[in-house]
Amino acid sequence: MADPADLFAYVRGEIVPLDRAFLHVSDLAIQRGYGVFDFFKVVDGQPLFLEQHLDRFEASAQQMELAVPLSRAALESAIRELITRHDLPVSGVKVLLTGGYSTDGYTPAEANLVMLQQPFAFPTPAQVAQGISIISHDYVREMPPVKTINYTMGIRLIKELKAHGADDVLYHKNGLVTEFPRSNFFIVKHDNTVVTPAQDVLWGITRQNLLGLSGTPYRIMEAPVNLQDVREAKEAFLTSTTKRVLPVVQLDGAPIGSGKPGAVTLALLDALVELEERQLKTLLEKQ
Amino acid sequence: MADPADLFAYVRGEIVPLDRAFLHVSDLAIQRGYGVFDFFKVVDGQPLFLEQHLDRFEASAQQMELAVPLSRAALESAIRELITRHDLPVSGVKVLLTGGYSTDGYTPAEANLVMLQQPFAFPTPAQVAQGISIISHDYVREMPPVKTINYTMGIRLIKELKAHGADDVLYHKNGLVTEFPRSNFFIVKHDNTVVTPAQDVLWGITRQNLLGLSGTPYRIMEAPVNLQDVREAKEAFLTSTTKRVLPVVQLDGAPIGSGKPGAVTLALLDALVELEERQLKTLLEKQ
Repeated sequence: MADPADLFAYVRGEIVPLDRAFLHVSDLAIQRGYGVFDFFKVVDGQPLFLEQHLDRFEASAQQMELAVPLSRAALESAIRELITRHDLPVSGVKVLLTGGYSTDGYTPAEANLVMLQQPFAFPTPAQVAQGISIISHDYVREMPPVKTINYTMGIRLIKELKAHGADDVLYHKNGLVTEFPRSNFFIVKHDNTVVTPAQDVLWGITRQNLLGLSGTPYRIMEAPVNLQDVREAKEAFLTSTTKRVLPVVQLDGAPIGSGKPGAVTLALLDALVELEERQLKTLLEKQ
Repeated sequence: MADPADLFAYVRGEIVPLDRAFLHVSDLAIQRGYGVFDFFKVVDGQPLFLEQHLDRFEASAQQMELAVPLSRAALESAIRELITRHDLPVSGVKVLLTGGYSTDGYTPAEANLVMLQQPFAFPTPAQVAQGISIISHDYVREMPPVKTINYTMGIRLIKELKAHGADDVLYHKNGLVTEFPRSNFFIVKHDNTVVTPAQDVLWGITRQNLLGLSGTPYRIMEAPVNLQDVREAKEAFLTSTTKRVLPVVQLDGAPIGSGKPGAVTLALLDALVELEERQLKTLLEKQ
């Protein structure tokens, strides 16, 4: 891990050492939990799938009636300036937009833009080989397609996860599965069709990239998935920017399929890593 | 209004000028909208119904697994110290507890306690005489009895309020009425029974005080209220710490009852003001 003392942050137009990155308490994120964000990974100094992430970030901001204070070009330029302050092999950049310094603590003001860069590690081969255990919980996020900062439910469930020895919690509504607090969900059916829920989910970039994969023998599609489908699935996995494709081997204490990471899941992880490597190569060549 | 430059805030153990009251961007309110708060009024230097507010604050914190860093006595002492820094005839104190400076941006850390004091004005006699217009919106807060900082829906609806020329939005679920974003709701039936919804609402202190009123000729009770009940009501009003009892005269463009503030509503406002004055007198005598 990088020493936090060596990190920088972008706060309201300025890049400052992370330990001096503050917001006034009148900020509407602090007062009313009002804000949106996005998060993308940076490999060898190159932000991956940046346009997709910034498209989603701008759409989230618009849904919350927040004006991004920078044009797309200026935003990208600020991101690149932040990235060049660090020398991190693999990291994530969080771009956060809050409701601003509200005079009455309720009405949005000029939005505050904050960007943070932190190192992270992809799951190790051992973690991928082991897969994760999940529990289910009846809940739908308030505005699923919008990446708001409201993670109250996910954070409150950390204790329940620990009590069950589980790694993550899969949300469902009356049995209809949606997503994890910070990841999307896929199952592999016995005919090798790969399915991810279409309704009430955040359109994760990794999810979109899997749905757009060409060159795999599998049909990858959006369709309703219920808890019984998961129990009867051949394989299951989650997707996210930091976790890529991570096998899910147990639901509410019962094994999914063989209870081990499946061949289709691992093939899709390989395909995703190849896609990322191709993008990285293209970005490095453009420099 | 007081000049913000003359105000102070309590931030993580210290009282500082408001313009120097900041939280680090790693705070879980900023990162994940994770926090709870309470808000009470201060008249002539005396916090009203403080024990009820702090009981609820501590209960909210417990529901979110946040530890209040001060004992009740120390918390009251800090509140009184903040109040003595100001000389405001009528003001509100917001006590806010966030998920703390999280190292991973997700897991709660040592909770951060912030307290802000700001002047406010009760509704004027003219505002009371006019009453307010409201619209309805299908929504239930995620954890209604917990005073979390999540006001995403209420804030997003500000624009819709303006478009309708309305003053506030009444939440309901499938027609079953609950509350406003920041106030409780009551109707007066034609037999002068006064009813407030019991399910999926925050237990407002003003609401509790009305339910506990003695010496009025009206039966004041909790019971389910649906939108049709509101349309057929004789009177309606909202309650909150800053608004006290405020007549609601129009729902979704149609008048409620006579379309004017009703006699029962105004009698309850008088009774509430008397209750507050009695408490203030008791508090001043105890000094």
